Amino acid sequence: MNIINVGIVGYGNLGQGVEKAVKHNPDMKLVAVFTRRDPDMIKLEDKRVKVFHLDKAKEFVEDIDVMILCGGSATDLPLQGPCFSRFFNTVDSFDTHAGIPAYYAAVNDSATSGGKTAAISIGWDPGLFSMNRMLFEAVLPRGQEYTFWGKGVSQGHSDAVRRIEGVKKAVQYTVPVEEALRKVRSGETPSLTATEKHIRECFVVPEEGADKEKISQAIKSMPNYFAGYETGVTFITDEEFTKNHTHMPHGGFVIRNGLTGEGYAAKKQIMEFSLKLESNPEFTAGVLTAYARAVYRLNREGQIGAKTVFDIPIAYLSIRTPEELRRTLL
Amino acid sequence: MNIINVGIVGYGNLGQGVEKAVKHNPDMKLVAVFTRRDPDMIKLEDKRVKVFHLDKAKEFVEDIDVMILCGGSATDLPLQGPCFSRFFNTVDSFDTHAGIPAYYAAVNDSATSGGKTAAISIGWDPGLFSMNRMLFEAVLPRGQEYTFWGKGVSQGHSDAVRRIEGVKKAVQYTVPVEEALRKVRSGETPSLTATEKHIRECFVVPEEGADKEKISQAIKSMPNYFAGYETGVTFITDEEFTKNHTHMPHGGFVIRNGLTGEGYAAKKQIMEFSLKLESNPEFTAGVLTAYARAVYRLNREGQIGAKTVFDIPIAYLSIRTPEELRRTLL
Repeated sequence: MNIINVGIVGYGNLGQGVEKAVKHNPDMKLVAVFTRRDPDMIKLEDKRVKVFHLDKAKEFVEDIDVMILCGGSATDLPLQGPCFSRFFNTVDSFDTHAGIPAYYAAVNDSATSGGKTAAISIGWDPGLFSMNRMLFEAVLPRGQEYTFWGKGVSQGHSDAVRRIEGVKKAVQYTVPVEEALRKVRSGETPSLTATEKHIRECFVVPEEGADKEKISQAIKSMPNYFAGYETGVTFITDEEFTKNHTHMPHGGFVIRNGLTGEGYAAKKQIMEFSLKLESNPEFTAGVLTAYARAVYRLNREGQIGAKTVFDIPIAYLSIRTPEELRRTLL
Repeated sequence: MNIINVGIVGYGNLGQGVEKAVKHNPDMKLVAVFTRRDPDMIKLEDKRVKVFHLDKAKEFVEDIDVMILCGGSATDLPLQGPCFSRFFNTVDSFDTHAGIPAYYAAVNDSATSGGKTAAISIGWDPGLFSMNRMLFEAVLPRGQEYTFWGKGVSQGHSDAVRRIEGVKKAVQYTVPVEEALRKVRSGETPSLTATEKHIRECFVVPEEGADKEKISQAIKSMPNYFAGYETGVTFITDEEFTKNHTHMPHGGFVIRNGLTGEGYAAKKQIMEFSLKLESNPEFTAGVLTAYARAVYRLNREGQIGAKTVFDIPIAYLSIRTPEELRRTLL
C-alpha cells in the first residue's frame, strides 16, 4: 500500500479533527502540522509529529503529498488556497458560497501552474449536501429541493451574540422547524423562506449585573442574523454552559420532492440525504481526509487544477480498489 | 445545446419510464424504441417515435448517441450488454449483485473494442445506494452500515407467490421492521440479519375454491424467499387487487453509524440516504436517463469502456455547465 503523507495547515477544531481522522485511514500518515501561532505552544498527542510555523511549509514540498488546509474562509483560505496549491496538492473547506467562483478561479490558476491538484469547498455544505442537491436534480428534473440545517451550532450566529454588551459566553443553535420538515418529508412542496424553515435558540451566560431584558432584545432584533426568525433566548450559568454547551453538534437534511410522468398519472418521488453529527468539525475532517486520498491519486494520474465534489469520481475517495468496490459495495 | 439522441431497448415498465424521463430532459430526444415483440403491437404516446424489432437496431448506429437497455438481468442483459456496447454507448440497470464482476468484464471488453462507453448497474440498488455505501465508508471508516429496503414491491417474491397452486394474482411487499430502523437511526449499532430487518407482506387473490390455508402455509414455508421471515398473508378480491395493488412503490434507507475520534472522546456521526418512491420503475428510469447524459459526454471526451456509479463524476449527469453548478449548487 502506498502511504499518503499528509500535512495540516491550521490547528483549530478542524485541524485537530483531521489529526484524528488520519488515524482511521491506514494508508495515510500525518507528517507535520503548520500553524501561525508559536509552534512550541501546540502539543500533539503523537510526539513523532512535529509542529512548525507556517513559514516553514515550503521546506516540505518533497515530504508532503497532500496539505489539508484547515483555516477559515473569511481571511485564511483566500490567501492560503492560492498560495499553497502552487506547491502542494491541497484540500480545503472554503464555504463562503458567494465567493466560490472567484476562489475556484484563483486556486485553479495556481494549482495548474504548479502541476498540483486542489479539492476546494469540501465538507458537508458545501460538499456532501451540494453533491446531493445536484444529483437529486439530475435524477428528478421536475421537483422542489429543500435544505434544512440543524439542530446544530452556528459559529457565525454565536459570535454575533457574543459581541453584545453584557454577554460573557453564548452559543446559538439553528433548529429546523419540525412542522416544515414533516410537511416536506411527507412529500408536500410548500414555499418556505429561511425564516420559515429554521428557528434560532440562544444560550447566554450574562456578565454579572447585566440587563438580561436588554440582551434578549438586542439578540432578537439583530438584522440579518435574528430579526424575522423565531428566536429563543435562555440565560444559563457558566457551569451549565461548560457542561452542556461546549460540544459542536450539527446536521441537516437535503430533500427533493420530485415528480415523474405527467399530469394525472404523475408519481411522487422523494429523495433525502441527512446527517446527524455529534461533532461537526470531526465529521468535516473525515470528509476532507477522504478527499485527500482522491487528490493524491488524481495528481498521480496527471489530473491537475482545482476540483469540486462535482468533478471527482467517488471511487477515488475509497481505500478499496475498483475491483473490490464493484464486488463488495455495488 | 447539443441534443442527445436516445434509443430504448425493451419496452416494459422500465422502458416506458425512460420514455417519460426523456421528456423531462430538454437536451434529449427519443429516437426509437426496440423490442423483441411485434413492433406493430406497441404504440407510443408520441407518434413521431418509431418502434422497431431488436434486429434492426444496428441500422441506427449513426442516429443514436446512447442506447438505454431496459431488459431484465436474468436473461436479457447478459446478452444485450456485451452485444450493444460494441456499437452504442449504453446504460443499463444490471442488478444481480453476484454477477457484476463478470458482467463488468464482458461489457468493458466489448465497449473498449468498439470505442464506446457503457454505464452498468445504474439505478438505485445497485446505483445510488451503492454510491452512498461507498461514500459513507470513505468518510467514516469506523462504523456500521445498514441497508433497509421498502416499503415496496419485490418482483421476485411476487413471482414466487404467483407460482403457488391456487394463486390467481399476488403481490409481495418488503417492509422494514420499524423497531430495527428506529434503533439504527437513533445511532445504535445492533447486529441485524436480513430477517430481522424486514418483514414480508403478501396480498393474494385466490382462484375460486382454492384452499387458503394451504396457500398461506406454502408461502410462509418457502425456502430462501419466506422461511425465517415474519410473513403476513392477506387474501383479497380481484377488485381490491386492481384498485390498491397494481402500483409499484418502493424505497429504502442506507444508514451508517460511524465514530470519529477515539475511546471516551469518540463522537457518534450518523449519515443517511433514503428514497420513498411511488413508482420504482419510473424513478429508476430517471437515474438511467441522467447517466445517459454522462455516458454521451464521457464518450465525446474519449473515456471509453465500462463505468459504474463509482467512476463517473456527478457533474456529467447534470444539464448545467460546471460554472453554473459551482455558482448555484455548491
